[in-house]
Amino acid sequence: MKAALVIIGDEILNGSTIDTNAQFLAQVLDSQGILLMRKLTVRDRAPEITHALAQAAQGTDLIITTGGLGPTNDDITKQTITQCLDDELVMDDQVLAHVESFFARRHKPMLESNRRQALVPRRAEVLHNDLGTAPGLWCTWGQKAVVVLPGVPYEMKHIVEHRLLPKLQGLQEAKPIQHRYIHTVGVGESVIANTIAQIEADLPPTIGLAYLPSPGIVKLRLTGLAHGGDDMGQSLADFSRQIADKLGDIVFSTEANDSLPKAIGRLMAQTGKRMGTVESCTSGYLAHMITQIPGSSSYYDGSLVTYSYALKEKMLGVKHATLAQYGAVSQETIHEMAQGGLQALDVDYVLATSGIAGPSGGLPNKPVGTVWIAVADRQGVWPKKFQFNADRVRNIHLTAVMALDMLRRRLMGLA
Amino acid sequence: MKAALVIIGDEILNGSTIDTNAQFLAQVLDSQGILLMRKLTVRDRAPEITHALAQAAQGTDLIITTGGLGPTNDDITKQTITQCLDDELVMDDQVLAHVESFFARRHKPMLESNRRQALVPRRAEVLHNDLGTAPGLWCTWGQKAVVVLPGVPYEMKHIVEHRLLPKLQGLQEAKPIQHRYIHTVGVGESVIANTIAQIEADLPPTIGLAYLPSPGIVKLRLTGLAHGGDDMGQSLADFSRQIADKLGDIVFSTEANDSLPKAIGRLMAQTGKRMGTVESCTSGYLAHMITQIPGSSSYYDGSLVTYSYALKEKMLGVKHATLAQYGAVSQETIHEMAQGGLQALDVDYVLATSGIAGPSGGLPNKPVGTVWIAVADRQGVWPKKFQFNADRVRNIHLTAVMALDMLRRRLMGLA
Repeated sequence: MKAALVIIGDEILNGSTIDTNAQFLAQVLDSQGILLMRKLTVRDRAPEITHALAQAAQGTDLIITTGGLGPTNDDITKQTITQCLDDELVMDDQVLAHVESFFARRHKPMLESNRRQALVPRRAEVLHNDLGTAPGLWCTWGQKAVVVLPGVPYEMKHIVEHRLLPKLQGLQEAKPIQHRYIHTVGVGESVIANTIAQIEADLPPTIGLAYLPSPGIVKLRLTGLAHGGDDMGQSLADFSRQIADKLGDIVFSTEANDSLPKAIGRLMAQTGKRMGTVESCTSGYLAHMITQIPGSSSYYDGSLVTYSYALKEKMLGVKHATLAQYGAVSQETIHEMAQGGLQALDVDYVLATSGIAGPSGGLPNKPVGTVWIAVADRQGVWPKKFQFNADRVRNIHLTAVMALDMLRRRLMGLA
Repeated sequence: MKAALVIIGDEILNGSTIDTNAQFLAQVLDSQGILLMRKLTVRDRAPEITHALAQAAQGTDLIITTGGLGPTNDDITKQTITQCLDDELVMDDQVLAHVESFFARRHKPMLESNRRQALVPRRAEVLHNDLGTAPGLWCTWGQKAVVVLPGVPYEMKHIVEHRLLPKLQGLQEAKPIQHRYIHTVGVGESVIANTIAQIEADLPPTIGLAYLPSPGIVKLRLTGLAHGGDDMGQSLADFSRQIADKLGDIVFSTEANDSLPKAIGRLMAQTGKRMGTVESCTSGYLAHMITQIPGSSSYYDGSLVTYSYALKEKMLGVKHATLAQYGAVSQETIHEMAQGGLQALDVDYVLATSGIAGPSGGLPNKPVGTVWIAVADRQGVWPKKFQFNADRVRNIHLTAVMALDMLRRRLMGLA
């Protein structure tokens, strides 16, 4: 099966927004063994959208569009595609009821422009949007399918995961696609590629390997391509184990939909103990990562974000002399922060962060990106220094990820 | 002047790489008043590249390609485009000398495949690549220009800044597109569109209006199209003021690159006072938003993330009876949290959050998405209840944004 994407929106073409939807959809299609042939990004203009749809259709079975489904006048995707498909817009009572309840729940007035969001092509199947008012649409166009999705990332992703994927998997039954995942932390893509170069070279043409990097994390995905034979599952399992063994303890999971905070949650649940965080440079982002996991309250108590010297002293009992002599970004301070956190939060495990996120604040002996992280428990405190580089937000993300990895290693007896 | 991009590379279409080159080029073109009409992303295959070039050329004066200029066999961009332009590849001595010195400096053997990188179309102008071995190319194609750039981001950017931009600035009788921005918070896209419907209807065809939404925020962008006339700047300013006046106090900025946390930073700087946060459901994300702004330490002290009942009592002095009788998500608890935060953090302003982020934890009288936020200062505590919906991470983001807006309104005397 071959596909094309049509991304619709002026904001992408003038550079004010980076298009993350396209990468998400590319990964989803790839995971289903659907070959993405091309991607067209066009402005919110009917002739451009019409032309792009025709181009996208060449040699493909599936066309997915995102964007231009909002209630405002610059959103013209639905009307334009309905015309292209020679269909007409009709009011969908179920969608209308959803839109009405959406506004009722918020005690907000519903406008005519919101009503119009319940208009759908007569022959289209609605892919319901639980999180917004613009429905996704599955339209048939001769032998092809045209899927119309909203551009708001979290709405689009929700529709893809809950409505579109099941349909695609139904279509794909003839071609079993299997995956194995290996999640790693703390080592770069190229080093990993170098480490497993021989295994990668030995992969049969029916098995693909993709590197999916994010700050501090590299997710490897093995894909058993269509017609890989009956032993594909076994073969995937073998190569997956080979790679995981080769990479050793940088691997924190081989589950499909996993994350480092989830892995921490499982490890903490096993201990039956409680944890907290004391943060300076991550300033709440570490707490945010941990509590993104539903149910994290069963092992996570909270965080003391001590951004100022005064709060480091007041909340964590860091000595004024320590801050004065060594500064906030030092082994001495992170040690006192971690110990103070254990007491103040009254928990079994504490993660502490202090660093120079940048862009300013660098010193000759402590350049921007200098970060101290400590993991602490009743047995002691383990501080570690990191040197990241210039980008403030990336430094904050990397610090939070490496802190979680230090707790993972402590909980697993790796450190 | 109108342009199109052709992004070439399998790695983008299988989702393993996010395309940052396209956004960079989009911003460069926008800054030069060149209207980017469309972007085509295709695989490293001659028919796809050939077809994309033809599509990109429709109604445009400038076509920029990136990718596929490397020495390996899957890099076929240069040969393919040379054929499309009915030209032939010839060895460029200057480029060859550069490639040779490039390898000499690194004491690496130079292969025939590296030599071939010095082949350029006979009629092309070379855009020298100081940082790599693949030269950029400026080709003329009838009345159009076709610019061929390598895909390695830092090589591409260097060529654009040092070779391409000067040429474009020379070409352009520069009529840069102009933008005006209006940032709003707390009101949905459709309500805003309805409020300014008349002004939007009065916009001349040379001025475009776009709605750029993100959780809790809608950014409006007015764009004065090229050839809009000499008074375009004045006209944009007039319409921008009309819209801002009409929307009133939901507008928090009319600066180009602004954000709500930046606006809070400016307001806090004016007061010369200090602030902190006490967080339950946002669990550090509010602190993270505030401290994403460099220099926030000059007005922000920190956050007490009291995720557990125990910490709410210990850190903030919330009464056990209050939690037992009303629960953590209640007007009574948020009131005590905010007051406790003022004392514990010893700051002038406190934002407090407590809610049910979901997906579980909902109650009959407190469904998932029920959130209490309070702003507090020496004069008092102002609690407010919100009802969001299902998505956990979005509820956390919305809560943080609405909390910042409550502080903005307090600081501006709007509440």
